[in-house]
Amino acid sequence: MSVLIVGSTALDSIKTPTAENPRLLGGSASHAAVAASFFSPVKLIGIVGDDFPKPYVALYRRHKIDLSGLQVAKGKTFHWSGEYEINMNNRRTLLTELGVFENFTPHLPESHKKSPFVLLANIAPALQHHVLDQMTRPKFVAADTMDLWLNIALNDLMRLLPRLDCFVLNDSEAHQLTKEDNLFNAMRKIHKWGPKYVIIKKGSHGSILSGPRSRFICPAYPLHEVCDPTGAGDSFVGAMMGYLSAARGPIDANIRRAMIYGSVVASFCCEGFGLNRTTKIKRADIERRATELKKMTQF
Amino acid sequence: MSVLIVGSTALDSIKTPTAENPRLLGGSASHAAVAASFFSPVKLIGIVGDDFPKPYVALYRRHKIDLSGLQVAKGKTFHWSGEYEINMNNRRTLLTELGVFENFTPHLPESHKKSPFVLLANIAPALQHHVLDQMTRPKFVAADTMDLWLNIALNDLMRLLPRLDCFVLNDSEAHQLTKEDNLFNAMRKIHKWGPKYVIIKKGSHGSILSGPRSRFICPAYPLHEVCDPTGAGDSFVGAMMGYLSAARGPIDANIRRAMIYGSVVASFCCEGFGLNRTTKIKRADIERRATELKKMTQF
Repeated sequence: MSVLIVGSTALDSIKTPTAENPRLLGGSASHAAVAASFFSPVKLIGIVGDDFPKPYVALYRRHKIDLSGLQVAKGKTFHWSGEYEINMNNRRTLLTELGVFENFTPHLPESHKKSPFVLLANIAPALQHHVLDQMTRPKFVAADTMDLWLNIALNDLMRLLPRLDCFVLNDSEAHQLTKEDNLFNAMRKIHKWGPKYVIIKKGSHGSILSGPRSRFICPAYPLHEVCDPTGAGDSFVGAMMGYLSAARGPIDANIRRAMIYGSVVASFCCEGFGLNRTTKIKRADIERRATELKKMTQF
Repeated sequence: MSVLIVGSTALDSIKTPTAENPRLLGGSASHAAVAASFFSPVKLIGIVGDDFPKPYVALYRRHKIDLSGLQVAKGKTFHWSGEYEINMNNRRTLLTELGVFENFTPHLPESHKKSPFVLLANIAPALQHHVLDQMTRPKFVAADTMDLWLNIALNDLMRLLPRLDCFVLNDSEAHQLTKEDNLFNAMRKIHKWGPKYVIIKKGSHGSILSGPRSRFICPAYPLHEVCDPTGAGDSFVGAMMGYLSAARGPIDANIRRAMIYGSVVASFCCEGFGLNRTTKIKRADIERRATELKKMTQF
């Protein structure tokens, strides 16, 4: 089955202590779509300006991403610029130019409305709602978010939670949303607001799942060097949803393995700027690291 | 086989945002010895003053801890007092009265010198050396440390590393010692200084092992409430060494399971003040949580 992914499609200018890379292909939807493409067909919903580089369209196509839901509008592509501190944990936004994104209204082609798997990657909750409004009974809906929406669109986000099967957020967002220091208490609270599955991402410490049947402690793949963590969280949910939509059997039976694949693709993402590394791997590279993770967690 | 444990034996006065508990049984050796006692016979090396409460001696005895290496000296027992912040992650020392600890010179009874498993729990590296100097060819030596010794006794600690099979420290200490932000690079560096096994503790994020054959990502047992984390790290290494000394077969085949038991006993430690909770559990409670951890990590 295919997975429909909505989110931002952007140009990212990323500065780290050792390098500077202008106008890379970025955005939550780009990272998630490429990550998902290793596992299943992807339908991308997004918007770019008429300045969007042709090679990036070619890159999407190489990953067999269906672009019939990608709007090309007069104007500039969303441009984000950020800088990482030396330990790669803290980042600072230098510039945000919304461009054509400012007036984005996602329109789903008829062929997209029945997609069984939907990933509402990080984007304004109002747009996440707008996509869901157009869907016909999706089988499994997951959403990611970011601190910005907790700050400026909390009501929209809270209204979104009952519409989700799975909510994915990071540890500091979970704390901000629930006011709970303890992540397991935070998950409990979020369950009450709707989602059956709650996943909290903890960066290099991995992620944790709370589901209807059980909890899962998912490791991060150990990296000796992190080049650029931008998009790692998007890659995680993208690969997870790609795997889920391709797997047979109930969600409960597959979600752990889906998260492991999420961890693995996120690890590749961190090893290059933007999508540079992720677009160079093969499914066999992913399997190799998944097997390694299995060995590193067995006892 | 038995495990010999040297470390501090103290009275801990602990303040958290919700409670205050004066003069609890504490110290690295107390926590490690009780934790190890669930798995194997323990020989304790330490010193207390003549004010040391009788019920605490009885507690050691209930755990069948061999006290022939526990010196009782004229004067006051080492007293530490600390306060935790609301999120339980940061603690502040309010008071340290060394008492009889100031002139502690560990003397090993003849029967202790051939102990095959030795845990040099957190204590001044000079004393850790002094214990090792008295030992006859131990089979497996592990040591823990703390930031204090990195600050005031770094040379002694660096001289200790080649004498160890296993070095255990937490993430911030690993960073301080190696100047590496990346924990896997930090482990690599520490290996070069001697220990075949390096374990980095990451609190609620679990721990990681780097050994001659492989790496292991060890989860923490998920807790909804942390009452008092004092001694959790000591419980971790204590249980680990207790399990290792009781297990058959090579270290490599047992160390992962040993760390899991370490995680589990540390989780119980966090659920009560001082040793209040740990001393109330049974081996069956430990097995139950170890089985749960297995379920929470399988995929």
